[in-house]
Amino acid sequence: MAVYTDVRDAELRAFLKLYDIGEARSFKGIAEGVENSNFLLRTQKGSFILTLYEKRVAAADLPFFIALMEHLAEAGFACPRPVRRRDGEALGTLAARPAAIVTFLDGIGLQWPAAEECRKAGAGLATLHEKARGLNVSRKNALDMDGWKPLLQKTASQADSVEPGLRQLIESEYQTLSNTWPNALPKGVIHGDFFKDNVFFLNGTFSGVIDFYFACNDLLAYDIAIALNAWCFDKHFRFVPELSAAFLQGYGSVRALVEEEIAALPLLCRGAALRFLLTRLNDWLDVPEDALVTPHDPRDFSARLRFHALQNGPGIYFGDDA
Amino acid sequence: MAVYTDVRDAELRAFLKLYDIGEARSFKGIAEGVENSNFLLRTQKGSFILTLYEKRVAAADLPFFIALMEHLAEAGFACPRPVRRRDGEALGTLAARPAAIVTFLDGIGLQWPAAEECRKAGAGLATLHEKARGLNVSRKNALDMDGWKPLLQKTASQADSVEPGLRQLIESEYQTLSNTWPNALPKGVIHGDFFKDNVFFLNGTFSGVIDFYFACNDLLAYDIAIALNAWCFDKHFRFVPELSAAFLQGYGSVRALVEEEIAALPLLCRGAALRFLLTRLNDWLDVPEDALVTPHDPRDFSARLRFHALQNGPGIYFGDDA
Repeated sequence: MAVYTDVRDAELRAFLKLYDIGEARSFKGIAEGVENSNFLLRTQKGSFILTLYEKRVAAADLPFFIALMEHLAEAGFACPRPVRRRDGEALGTLAARPAAIVTFLDGIGLQWPAAEECRKAGAGLATLHEKARGLNVSRKNALDMDGWKPLLQKTASQADSVEPGLRQLIESEYQTLSNTWPNALPKGVIHGDFFKDNVFFLNGTFSGVIDFYFACNDLLAYDIAIALNAWCFDKHFRFVPELSAAFLQGYGSVRALVEEEIAALPLLCRGAALRFLLTRLNDWLDVPEDALVTPHDPRDFSARLRFHALQNGPGIYFGDDA
Repeated sequence: MAVYTDVRDAELRAFLKLYDIGEARSFKGIAEGVENSNFLLRTQKGSFILTLYEKRVAAADLPFFIALMEHLAEAGFACPRPVRRRDGEALGTLAARPAAIVTFLDGIGLQWPAAEECRKAGAGLATLHEKARGLNVSRKNALDMDGWKPLLQKTASQADSVEPGLRQLIESEYQTLSNTWPNALPKGVIHGDFFKDNVFFLNGTFSGVIDFYFACNDLLAYDIAIALNAWCFDKHFRFVPELSAAFLQGYGSVRALVEEEIAALPLLCRGAALRFLLTRLNDWLDVPEDALVTPHDPRDFSARLRFHALQNGPGIYFGDDA
C-alpha cells in the first residue's frame, strides 16, 4: 500500500486542465503499488489512475513504461492505457514529481487461484510477451544478476538475523547462478512482477494486467519463473505442481517454449526466488522510520529458493511427480 | 490512510451475494479513514465504499452510525447511504470483522479553503445538525470530558518530551474546562470530526460529508468549535478571522446560534483543541511497531489551544479584530 505524497486540490485542478478528461469528481489515494503513490481519479469522462512516481522509480525509465503500456493497449492487450495531454505528452509533473494518468482497468487480483485460473494467467503472460514484440524502446533489467550483487553485499552480513543460514544460502546461490545462468535463451519484453495482485480477473475470466514498473528486456522464460514463484505455492510455502502445470500449459497454448527454456526452468526459478529474496531482505533490513508500508517477509522467498535448488529437472513444474 | 485487513476474493464474493448490487468489478483499498479499513468497490450497479470496522470502533456503536447516515440520507443530506442486504441488515461480517457497504459520495476535500468555501462548510454543518433531528437512537460522546481524563492521565508524564510545557498546559486546561464547561447549551447529534478531508466540494459547491464514526449526542456548538479548529488556521497555525467569520456566517444562515452559544465559543474551541491534542498526543506516544499510519503531530493542536485560551470573548471568531 502506498500514498507517499499529498496532492492539493488547487494543483490537481491545474494539472487536469492540461488534459481533455474533464474535472475531478473524486480523488482518493489507493493502497496499491509499493514504489509509487497511486490515486483513483473520477471525472465526467470516467475513472482513471493517477500515479506520482516517487524516487525509487528512475525518471529516465518512465518513457519506456509509458511506451510499453501504450504499445500493449494498441495491440489489444488489456492493461492501463496512458492518457495523453492536449499537447501530446503522457508524462507531466504534479506535487514536484513525475506524474501520469492511465485508464482504470476493471478486475480483481486473486489471492488463491485455482488451476484453471493459473492456466488463464499463463496464457495472459504469453499473450503479453507476444503483443510486446515490436516495441521500439528497451530497458535493461535493473534487477538482473548485476543488480543482485550490490543487494547481496549490502544484506549478507545481517542475513542470519532474519533466518539462520540465510547468508550462506544467498551467497552460494548467487555463486551458482552467476556461473550457470542461461543467457542464450529467447529474449523479449518481460513484465518482471507478474504477481497475483497485478493480474486481474472478472467473473472467472482473465481481464488484464497492471503495474508495469519492473518491465524490461530479459529472458522471456525468466518472467515465467517469476510467475511460478508467485502463483504456484500455497500459504504454507509448499509448491503445488498442479498449479504450475496449469500455468505452463496456459502459457504454452499461446507461445511454445523451446527445449532449452524448459530445461532451464529450475535454474530460472532459483534466480527469480533469489531476486525477490534479495530485494525483500534489503527492504526488511532497511525500513525507514517513517515507513507507511510493512515490508514483505523475505522468508517467503528463502523457502521457495530452497525448494527450487533441490530440483534436478523441470518435471515437477509440469506436474510430473515421479 | 488505512487498510489494516486483507480481504480475500472468495470471501468478498460470498459477502456480496447477500446484497443486491451485483458482483465486484473492482475492489481497491483506499487511503482514507484512520480508524477502519476502507475499500472502493465497483459493481455493475455503481461505486460503493466497503468498510471493515477495526477494533478501535466499538461494535455496539455501529447501529447508531448506520442509523444516522440512513436518517440523514433519507432527509436529503448528501452523505454515504448504507446499502441494506437482501435480508434487510446493513451490517454484516467480512474477514472476521463487522462490515458495511455505503454508497460512494462524489467530491474532494479541500486543503486550504477560502472564506467562501468556509461559509458553505458552515452552512453544511448547520444543515447536518438540523436534518439529524428526529433520529431515534443516540450515542454518548466517548471523547467528552469524561473521555479526556484517562487520556490525560496516560499522556501527562511524557507530554513534555513532545513539547516543553505541554504537561502543564493540558493539566491546567483540563482543570479550567471541567470547572466551566457550558453543559446547558443546545444539544443534538454532532458529526464530531468535521475536518476538511471529511467535507466534500464539487466545482466549488459543498457536495456532502463523510466519516460519521465520531458522531454522537453533544452540544451542537461544540461541533462548530471542532470545525473552527480544523478550518480556520493557516499552515503556520495562525488563526484566520475571515475564515472563522465566514464559517459562522454560513452556519448562522441555516441555524441561528443562541446568545449563550456565542458567548461560549472561546471555551468550546479550547475544549475541542484539547480533545484533539489529547488523542493525538496519545497516538503519538503510543505508535505500534507495525503502524501503517504516521500519527498527526499533536503540536498542531497545542498551538490552537494556546490561541483560544488567550481569547476573552467571542469577537475574534466573528472577524472582529478590535
